[in-house]
Amino acid sequence: MKVAWAGSRHAVEVADRMARLVASDPVFRKDTRTMLSRKELFKDTLKKAAHAWKRIVELRLTEEEANLLRLYVDQPGYVDLHWGMFVPAIKGQGTEEQQKKWLPMAYKFQIIGCYAQTELGHGSNVQGLETTATFDPSADEFVMHSPTLTSSKWWPGGLGKASTHAVVYARLITEGKDYGIHGFIVQLRSLDDHSPLPGVTLGDIGGKFGSGAYNSMDNGVLRFDHVRIPRDQMLMRLSQVTREGKYVHSDVPKQLLYGTMVYVRQTIVADASKALSRAVCIAVRYSAIRKQFGSQDGGPETQVLNYKTQQSRLFPLLASAYAYRFVGQWLKWLYTDVTQKLEAKDYSTLPEAHACTAGLKSVTTSATADAIEECRKLCGGHGYLNSSGLPELFAVYVPACTYEGDNVVLLLQVARFLMKTVAQVATGKQPVGTIAYMGNIQHLMQCKSAVNTAEDWLNPAAIKEVFEARALRMAVNCAQNISKAPSQEERFL
Amino acid sequence: MKVAWAGSRHAVEVADRMARLVASDPVFRKDTRTMLSRKELFKDTLKKAAHAWKRIVELRLTEEEANLLRLYVDQPGYVDLHWGMFVPAIKGQGTEEQQKKWLPMAYKFQIIGCYAQTELGHGSNVQGLETTATFDPSADEFVMHSPTLTSSKWWPGGLGKASTHAVVYARLITEGKDYGIHGFIVQLRSLDDHSPLPGVTLGDIGGKFGSGAYNSMDNGVLRFDHVRIPRDQMLMRLSQVTREGKYVHSDVPKQLLYGTMVYVRQTIVADASKALSRAVCIAVRYSAIRKQFGSQDGGPETQVLNYKTQQSRLFPLLASAYAYRFVGQWLKWLYTDVTQKLEAKDYSTLPEAHACTAGLKSVTTSATADAIEECRKLCGGHGYLNSSGLPELFAVYVPACTYEGDNVVLLLQVARFLMKTVAQVATGKQPVGTIAYMGNIQHLMQCKSAVNTAEDWLNPAAIKEVFEARALRMAVNCAQNISKAPSQEERFL
Repeated sequence: MKVAWAGSRHAVEVADRMARLVASDPVFRKDTRTMLSRKELFKDTLKKAAHAWKRIVELRLTEEEANLLRLYVDQPGYVDLHWGMFVPAIKGQGTEEQQKKWLPMAYKFQIIGCYAQTELGHGSNVQGLETTATFDPSADEFVMHSPTLTSSKWWPGGLGKASTHAVVYARLITEGKDYGIHGFIVQLRSLDDHSPLPGVTLGDIGGKFGSGAYNSMDNGVLRFDHVRIPRDQMLMRLSQVTREGKYVHSDVPKQLLYGTMVYVRQTIVADASKALSRAVCIAVRYSAIRKQFGSQDGGPETQVLNYKTQQSRLFPLLASAYAYRFVGQWLKWLYTDVTQKLEAKDYSTLPEAHACTAGLKSVTTSATADAIEECRKLCGGHGYLNSSGLPELFAVYVPACTYEGDNVVLLLQVARFLMKTVAQVATGKQPVGTIAYMGNIQHLMQCKSAVNTAEDWLNPAAIKEVFEARALRMAVNCAQNISKAPSQEERFL
Repeated sequence: MKVAWAGSRHAVEVADRMARLVASDPVFRKDTRTMLSRKELFKDTLKKAAHAWKRIVELRLTEEEANLLRLYVDQPGYVDLHWGMFVPAIKGQGTEEQQKKWLPMAYKFQIIGCYAQTELGHGSNVQGLETTATFDPSADEFVMHSPTLTSSKWWPGGLGKASTHAVVYARLITEGKDYGIHGFIVQLRSLDDHSPLPGVTLGDIGGKFGSGAYNSMDNGVLRFDHVRIPRDQMLMRLSQVTREGKYVHSDVPKQLLYGTMVYVRQTIVADASKALSRAVCIAVRYSAIRKQFGSQDGGPETQVLNYKTQQSRLFPLLASAYAYRFVGQWLKWLYTDVTQKLEAKDYSTLPEAHACTAGLKSVTTSATADAIEECRKLCGGHGYLNSSGLPELFAVYVPACTYEGDNVVLLLQVARFLMKTVAQVATGKQPVGTIAYMGNIQHLMQCKSAVNTAEDWLNPAAIKEVFEARALRMAVNCAQNISKAPSQEERFL
């Protein structure tokens, strides 16, 4: 089971080795984390990040090993954004020339980067971002500006204190025309004394849920007052602004960006399994030790793990941790498949892959957040103490329901996709991937389950057919209901 | 609506006055609460408690006014236990003589008391507590002792740092016989220098969920090493130990104790409404201000309050806040009714009142905890910031699901009561109070709702009949199912 969980014998070995490396290093100790003040906690995070980097270099760790080391250090910090968002954004959206210039500095931590997209007034609606990048052909520069209070960049991790640079998303304006949201590499702080550059206002946005949790992260606020950057700091892989100020598209297909989204959400699903397994592990162990009631004659009390009320709440969560693990591994395959198809300019599976990852991101993170809190309650009063680990597990996990796509907004996207599919199936188009079953509409709309005895449910095909019939009938029913709505907008509000 | 919410014009006036008193006093400021270290937060709580007491005395506030003042100060602290548990325990379980001796000192804060019941190993199962109080007739004293690690008192608020005294629950042992759990007034700390008395080990049990939240409270641990107290510090209203060590019952009926339980749970239901209304108020205001999506043509975006997905999540919570408020007021009436009946030695309605308060405590606190978290998510990313108020509202509220009866354990008690009632109805006994409808079993098991059109639901009698029929049929169905269980224990595990 250990091998199945990790994915391979090799993965077990590496994970074990990295876990021991972290556990045996006093710099990485976690036991005082919830007792530190915000400032102490932030300093501790800087110290751990620097020490992790030192160890990674000293031990010449591979990328796989380094990622696992950071996983076990388990303290959110600016490096997560540097490696997880800043570097990938340059890789994905930068030209080869831009990658050659910026990536080596990022790899050597000569610069620290973050990802400045969300604004005070705009999260889910990325197209509504207000920060402007106006091209000035007289100087061959973009002018970055925050025209309103709501245009302040708000939330980016690593922005508040640590980052020297950011990939900033802003409305590209050239020749008087607004070309929508594009990415720009912007230096924020001096490389000499780390002070904010002229025209740049920076700050930490304050305390967050929990005692420690995400308070180790310097989520920040950023405002620009007409800050100038060279033209070549626009990320130009997909589109460019010429020296004269002309906006031109490259021949790189825009769909490639969606591949990154599939990648990020795939890792979120895998992380759900990790977070849930930690919580379930604590709750199962507690339930095996804790005894309460059940002794009428002075004998020992009953382990709470033996109560059906405990089992019926706990065991489905244990099963879910495994289920999310395996669906996460399948999503890794899906990402590889989509990437290969995108490289061959085959975009046919992209909508389905996008809906699939959006739906799974939403379902697994919502269920995991609720499950961690349920594990906490399953430990009774003791779950309320930080020393149980559970309050912090919840507080540090729960933003996963909001970042990288709010879960409710994502489910509405899946709903739109399903409604579109129902309409297409009616016209005879064959759906692909996880919704291929919807092509079997004739059978599924009228089939009757052949299950008669409890044992019949042990046949996976019987379970699958029932799920497919239920899902399809609900989708068709929903499509019929919303077709009655007076306008397109009201259907999905 | 303001008057309906507060209960009367008088209540509105007093609440407004106390709210303004707190809001205008700089000592009571709350805006830095989540930024304080645990130690600073605890000192701040002590300062606020002392200042509140000073203002209560200076302004000669009534008990109603003082309670509201503390409600608006809104920072859990030892005074909550002193007034809410220590004083009531002495009032309810102490003899007149004991009340005369201890209450004046408590009223003047010459002593500070807490309520030491829960142990490391025992919460819900009060009968399993392990602390012993062994009578020594040679000295006319009880010897308080913690025989095991799990017998350590664990959780009592005010115990860790503030209290000088506690009502301690322990197994009364006299003449070699264990008479079960009784309450004892025990001095813990010196009135001169506040240091623990000989044989008494005391400490704070550490950080809890949230940044501030309940971390203002000194939940504590307490161990006794053969600590002696005079015999007359056993709370002797219901039973006594004589000078010779004989255990005798007084003629005061034990059922009076259940009246206190009804009282405490009634206040918890009322508090659910207060906590929920705060969260809903924040989420409604946010939804009215926040705009996102919905503009295709460059016009203003749509207020999120106008989205049906937001409404369908938020409005039921708003309605619940009112519902819990009104059911809380009804429970106040129930408590008065039960108290009057108990005084007239009529115990007939006690089981129903007990089940009713246990069920409502469980349902309202679970729903409120979930609802506060839902309000937090309804504020998107901003709900994760402490400055939204929501993370702390959740963290400080959620222990209500566990204290004063774990919600799952309480629901099982309600289930037992319902199953018993179903059995009694079958023998022709007429149920009373909220379950009187179950007497109408003939009709309810076979009736068909007369509702044909949507408008028919506007008739409250139609809704009531449907709920009654559904509840009764589920109860009868459940009774039939569990009657198949092989043993009595397995029915409710």
